[in-house]
Amino acid sequence: MNRPPLPKEQKHFQLERLILFTDAVFAIAITLLIIEIKVPHVEGEFAPEKLRTALYHQLPQWIGFLVSFSVIGQYWVAHHRAFGYVRDYDRGLLFMNLFFLMSIVVMPFTTALYSDYFTQNLPFLIYCLNITLTGVLQTALWLRISNRKRQLSYFVPHRQQRYILWRGLVVPLIFLLSAALSGFSTWLSRGLFVGIFIAQWVLSRYFITQPDETTPGQLTE
Amino acid sequence: MNRPPLPKEQKHFQLERLILFTDAVFAIAITLLIIEIKVPHVEGEFAPEKLRTALYHQLPQWIGFLVSFSVIGQYWVAHHRAFGYVRDYDRGLLFMNLFFLMSIVVMPFTTALYSDYFTQNLPFLIYCLNITLTGVLQTALWLRISNRKRQLSYFVPHRQQRYILWRGLVVPLIFLLSAALSGFSTWLSRGLFVGIFIAQWVLSRYFITQPDETTPGQLTE
Amino acid sequence: MNRPPLPKEQKHFQLERLILFTDAVFAIAITLLIIEIKVPHVEGEFAPEKLRTALYHQLPQWIGFLVSFSVIGQYWVAHHRAFGYVRDYDRGLLFMNLFFLMSIVVMPFTTALYSDYFTQNLPFLIYCLNITLTGVLQTALWLRISNRKRQLSYFVPHRQQRYILWRGLVVPLIFLLSAALSGFSTWLSRGLFVGIFIAQWVLSRYFITQPDETTPGQLTE
Amino acid sequence: MNRPPLPKEQKHFQLERLILFTDAVFAIAITLLIIEIKVPHVEGEFAPEKLRTALYHQLPQWIGFLVSFSVIGQYWVAHHRAFGYVRDYDRGLLFMNLFFLMSIVVMPFTTALYSDYFTQNLPFLIYCLNITLTGVLQTALWLRISNRKRQLSYFVPHRQQRYILWRGLVVPLIFLLSAALSGFSTWLSRGLFVGIFIAQWVLSRYFITQPDETTPGQLTE
Repeated sequence: MNRPPLPKEQKHFQLERLILFTDAVFAIAITLLIIEIKVPHVEGEFAPEKLRTALYHQLPQWIGFLVSFSVIGQYWVAHHRAFGYVRDYDRGLLFMNLFFLMSIVVMPFTTALYSDYFTQNLPFLIYCLNITLTGVLQTALWLRISNRKRQLSYFVPHRQQRYILWRGLVVPLIFLLSAALSGFSTWLSRGLFVGIFIAQWVLSRYFITQPDETTPGQLTE
Repeated sequence: MNRPPLPKEQKHFQLERLILFTDAVFAIAITLLIIEIKVPHVEGEFAPEKLRTALYHQLPQWIGFLVSFSVIGQYWVAHHRAFGYVRDYDRGLLFMNLFFLMSIVVMPFTTALYSDYFTQNLPFLIYCLNITLTGVLQTALWLRISNRKRQLSYFVPHRQQRYILWRGLVVPLIFLLSAALSGFSTWLSRGLFVGIFIAQWVLSRYFITQPDETTPGQLTE
Repeated sequence: MNRPPLPKEQKHFQLERLILFTDAVFAIAITLLIIEIKVPHVEGEFAPEKLRTALYHQLPQWIGFLVSFSVIGQYWVAHHRAFGYVRDYDRGLLFMNLFFLMSIVVMPFTTALYSDYFTQNLPFLIYCLNITLTGVLQTALWLRISNRKRQLSYFVPHRQQRYILWRGLVVPLIFLLSAALSGFSTWLSRGLFVGIFIAQWVLSRYFITQPDETTPGQLTE
Repeated sequence: MNRPPLPKEQKHFQLERLILFTDAVFAIAITLLIIEIKVPHVEGEFAPEKLRTALYHQLPQWIGFLVSFSVIGQYWVAHHRAFGYVRDYDRGLLFMNLFFLMSIVVMPFTTALYSDYFTQNLPFLIYCLNITLTGVLQTALWLRISNRKRQLSYFVPHRQQRYILWRGLVVPLIFLLSAALSGFSTWLSRGLFVGIFIAQWVLSRYFITQPDETTPGQLTE
């Protein structure tokens, strides 16, 4: 009637704002990983070897940093890929996204916890649980986005829909396996994260075979 | 006259900048919540049970994290909803927004304070006061935005105006009640925050009954 | 010739990127103020009065927070106002802006320094120096932007040019005066910052008298 | 066929999101530099001279802050300049950018490490290594962007391509030289970073001689 609707750009800006807020949280979480690693203090009289030893003992912290940077980076790439199709949002998407961010925000803590007690099982299980929960929420986000009935997304080719779904499941599945292996071998379970890159390489080989068939620039991401 | 006015996109970008700055502050405040939770240090010889106990004693910290993440998340959603209608700003809105952000920024401190002294009344009252003040400023922002005489907003349907007003009052009212109950029961007052979700569900039931009557995509947020 | 120039939107995005990066640094600096205020630890056996006393002794920290939040907020508003006129940038503007940001980034440190040694002169002088330097850089930015020969800005009415110039000088002048007074009275010099708000109110009274003569929405900021 | 492709603005927004996420990480890394500098604590009874001495002993921290702020600032300017030409991205660019960000994020740690052990060689070598790695990744990013076969960029004039390449190599080359000199002289190696500004001034003299020949506004950055 006499109610002018919100201009279309305004609605689009609301969506952009949701996404840029998400990116800011991602950026802070991924950067906070470094402030958990403190400059080592050399006790007593200084000697270069003491500092070398102290730095060497920080190895678990750096492994934790590397793993978590990769994992958060992966989740950001996945969020970026999935939200590339979003053209509208609803309350559910907004709250699922906040819940997903809560799980991301906890990661600097669980990373530091497992790095500080590198050989212990409980901290590593908590860490794996954190990553798995994030992956489950990521998958739930994608299922909501790609659900055609909700009309939240542009057209998603079926193959692409499954590709994004599977890619999103790689990280939680790897860390579930890591958790299962943690009782047997510390190093195997801690090192399993490199499987992420292998699994994703295999997945993109499998799914991206007819590049001309898909929306250019999206599948190649 | 011969003064070319600023292009319209420029004015819109100024508004966007205000909003994205706000989002960055929100994102940092919500992420800082986690750095208040330190990895527990096990005193003396290490034993897995000691770590388990230490983690268990962090329960209040996690409750604080959960409550404050929810509250800041709610305020972000409310800000997102309210500013979805904004098409211009004035000096008053700019300063009220900064004052609102100051109250948001204090929340990681008051959260840590009340978590560290979980059973004490004074820290909890300070926390409730912080949340209530934020809510009052949020409401003041909305009243300024939706005031038609100021011409800062797009057309806001009356029902929607009241809906956003009431939603904004839910969080401060719940925490005023929490503050009032804190003298009687620690757990009741600390747990009352779940009432936010119930109250907001009731409100959206009450207000969103004729979805076709409203601007699509806004009321469903 | 056969070299397609960069599209105009691209150039505009480059400018936006500069501004949004600036806002992110502002947002982090203003939020870091709170992490300098630690939850007080009660020594020995807990007693509510001890906590109350400890919180009371944090008063200087809160004054510092309030002053610095206001000052950084003011500088953000000034940057927002000045860059509202910018339509292009050059290398000089880019580097002056980075230098300006360096001065902003130091503020959480100088704030904590002066708060921790509230009654000492040296920390307060360092703090005043930091704020004054920021203000000088802010003024230099505005002089470069509003210099018509450089063609970096949209048309700036002369009155508006002087208004922004004077507003930018308020904060550094007040803190130079604070520094001068710090030898005489702790509280007078620390409390002088409220003069910012008074001086700016006077300035906007003086300059904004013919609102119809100016670009709407800019002078009223 | 019947698959509507993603709208062009959507693709552009995906690229913007990548860039703004990068900026947020840059902004946090550059601001975290300051939280590594703690307010000095005066042991025993307070005396102004003690505080003065303590502040004076923080000189290495401030040198580290200044150097790293300059270096991260340079890398941001370089990223800003290079991505000004980007019009599309592929998976490789996305991951190289994340890897580049990982190196940026580590800088607050290596800065604090070298500042705390200012006269030691090992920390300084680690710091130089960190900066050099960042520079190598920055160069790799630019080579990928400016590779015409990949079609990721707008037209880059050949002279401009070489100019950006050389500018990107200045910082890593200077710090490789610093690393080489660190065995001979502490102050010479630590002070060599001012060479960045000299080398870049020389480079821009050499390359920017025919401003009309190049895309306006880009070479002057």
